[in-house]
Amino acid sequence: MKNFMVSRYAALEAYVPGEQPRDMEYVKLNTNESPFPPAPGVMAAINGEELEKLKLYSDPEGKDLRDAIAAHFGVKRENVLLGNGSDEILAFAFFAFCAGEKVLFPDITYGFYPVYSELVGANAEIIPLKEDFSIDINKYMGDRGMVVIANPNAPTGMALPLADIEKIVAANPSNVVLVDEAYVDFGGESAVNLVKKYENLIVARTFSKSRSLAGARLGFGIASEGLIADMNKIKYSLNPYNINRLTLLAGKASIEDVEYFEKNVRAIIEAREYTVSELRTRGFTVLESKANFVFAAKEGKSGEELYRELKARGVLVRHFTKERIKDYLRITIGTKEQMNVLLCKLDEII
Amino acid sequence: MKNFMVSRYAALEAYVPGEQPRDMEYVKLNTNESPFPPAPGVMAAINGEELEKLKLYSDPEGKDLRDAIAAHFGVKRENVLLGNGSDEILAFAFFAFCAGEKVLFPDITYGFYPVYSELVGANAEIIPLKEDFSIDINKYMGDRGMVVIANPNAPTGMALPLADIEKIVAANPSNVVLVDEAYVDFGGESAVNLVKKYENLIVARTFSKSRSLAGARLGFGIASEGLIADMNKIKYSLNPYNINRLTLLAGKASIEDVEYFEKNVRAIIEAREYTVSELRTRGFTVLESKANFVFAAKEGKSGEELYRELKARGVLVRHFTKERIKDYLRITIGTKEQMNVLLCKLDEII
Repeated sequence: MKNFMVSRYAALEAYVPGEQPRDMEYVKLNTNESPFPPAPGVMAAINGEELEKLKLYSDPEGKDLRDAIAAHFGVKRENVLLGNGSDEILAFAFFAFCAGEKVLFPDITYGFYPVYSELVGANAEIIPLKEDFSIDINKYMGDRGMVVIANPNAPTGMALPLADIEKIVAANPSNVVLVDEAYVDFGGESAVNLVKKYENLIVARTFSKSRSLAGARLGFGIASEGLIADMNKIKYSLNPYNINRLTLLAGKASIEDVEYFEKNVRAIIEAREYTVSELRTRGFTVLESKANFVFAAKEGKSGEELYRELKARGVLVRHFTKERIKDYLRITIGTKEQMNVLLCKLDEII
Repeated sequence: MKNFMVSRYAALEAYVPGEQPRDMEYVKLNTNESPFPPAPGVMAAINGEELEKLKLYSDPEGKDLRDAIAAHFGVKRENVLLGNGSDEILAFAFFAFCAGEKVLFPDITYGFYPVYSELVGANAEIIPLKEDFSIDINKYMGDRGMVVIANPNAPTGMALPLADIEKIVAANPSNVVLVDEAYVDFGGESAVNLVKKYENLIVARTFSKSRSLAGARLGFGIASEGLIADMNKIKYSLNPYNINRLTLLAGKASIEDVEYFEKNVRAIIEAREYTVSELRTRGFTVLESKANFVFAAKEGKSGEELYRELKARGVLVRHFTKERIKDYLRITIGTKEQMNVLLCKLDEII
């Protein structure tokens, strides 16, 4: 077979999504989805009339949804950009602000950052987390390239205080600081309000976790008007109609139901605290999580072994082969019932 | 305001989608949508149970839909790639097969090709259409870079015979030939069957036009396993979960309803032939269209004038400012009733 791929992408290592095996029904704790259905308003919004309208293109500007998001966060429509998942917001930012230039991010973080870096031909400076898996903020102070920080970080779940985020943003006035807040709703401190103060800050958010819409593919960025305009230039050069009609409706119904959202987030946090405490009782090392997952290791059992034995017993969790974290499992927080299944299977294994 | 955009994209000129004004109800003949609703099975497939499942990620491989498409076209799942609209298929191909290298396409064609070319840093050789707006196939024979041909072409609507497409594919064995068949269902000859014979051919298709799903954002590519694998590498480096759950369901229901699809296509072709004949009666020059739009000009009236006067009368059509085609209008074919409104308004104007 002839090779047609351009040379610059010959060595590109793509992102590997969490597995979705179909051989049996699993307790699925491997991709950080919500165990709760989307807000009731989502089901009501996607009605027969709207399905007929699928014949028409979606609004490429997504004005109604951007207005709803802007109202929720107290910013303007011009401060909001929609993405096909927050991954697309990250992609837009990598293209716009570090293609062919420099970008900094931790060694242990969301696995897509090095992939985007490679895709846009950036020069990545990868900064090790400290021994305790916390982010060493002093290493991001040089104003020498785009900075990407997941807060809370993945797969550790550990969060930086807002004051530390602000220090990084303030110390990089000539570069964009992208704060990926996919998991912030579960106990982290959001930097959204700093967007008014710093024109170099982008906050990326998603509907996939706390809003139970992973399957709808919706994320957004909040930033100064200038940065949003720059990212829009990439969006309109890549995929202008990036959000489908039904997802625009689902997003609006979801963001408007504050009560349902808060109830679900509280339930996840409670189940997380319960799980952390139960795992520690069983001798697990569990990092301090502010996310809808925990990162845990058990001395004497490799991460891979635990992952395999759980899978054989019908519980899917995520395991990474990277050296520094190969003994850890990333376990999504589901309902308390699901977490009890996990704990029960762990008891069988250890 | 400080400028954060990377220098390589400073001059990037993004694609401009057709307008979607909200100031009044228009007869919308400007973005080549279908006037008919999606297949009845689409409405049935998106039910309450599926809406609840939005909490879960969509299948990044889109296996069920790819199997349905493969069955429809008599190819294998491995020959099919799904895109968030066919635009995304084009984007994957530009990244994979001409980033930093050479690409050839006509001067008058889908306006996104030069944008993608710029985005991926390709060196574009832009080849003028012949005087009669047909594609000069002899200019694409040199095997000197990726070739991109829309067939039927946009915004002319003119089609190349399959034999000409095959000549181009055969003459470029070291390069990918991307045939964009967004409009092929309305009378063109598809190159899909050539995919088995030529490992360098990609056929891009969409659900947006003939399948009434513009708002669902769904397209696909059909190609040799090798080219699909290369494009998948880009997909998994850009947006692995690119298709949402509901669109996967809608696509499957749509492709399985052959009868509904054929009925709608026949109605559009009939309305097109009627419109062409009526426009010519009124002294318009109308190119030979095999698409769901016609490209027409009226001596003595500039395209811009006609566009504006139609808009003032509640009929939206598309006008391009490019010198060679500035006197033409691209008019989407809707129902016969909609076309009669257009003709009636034209009678008022001229």
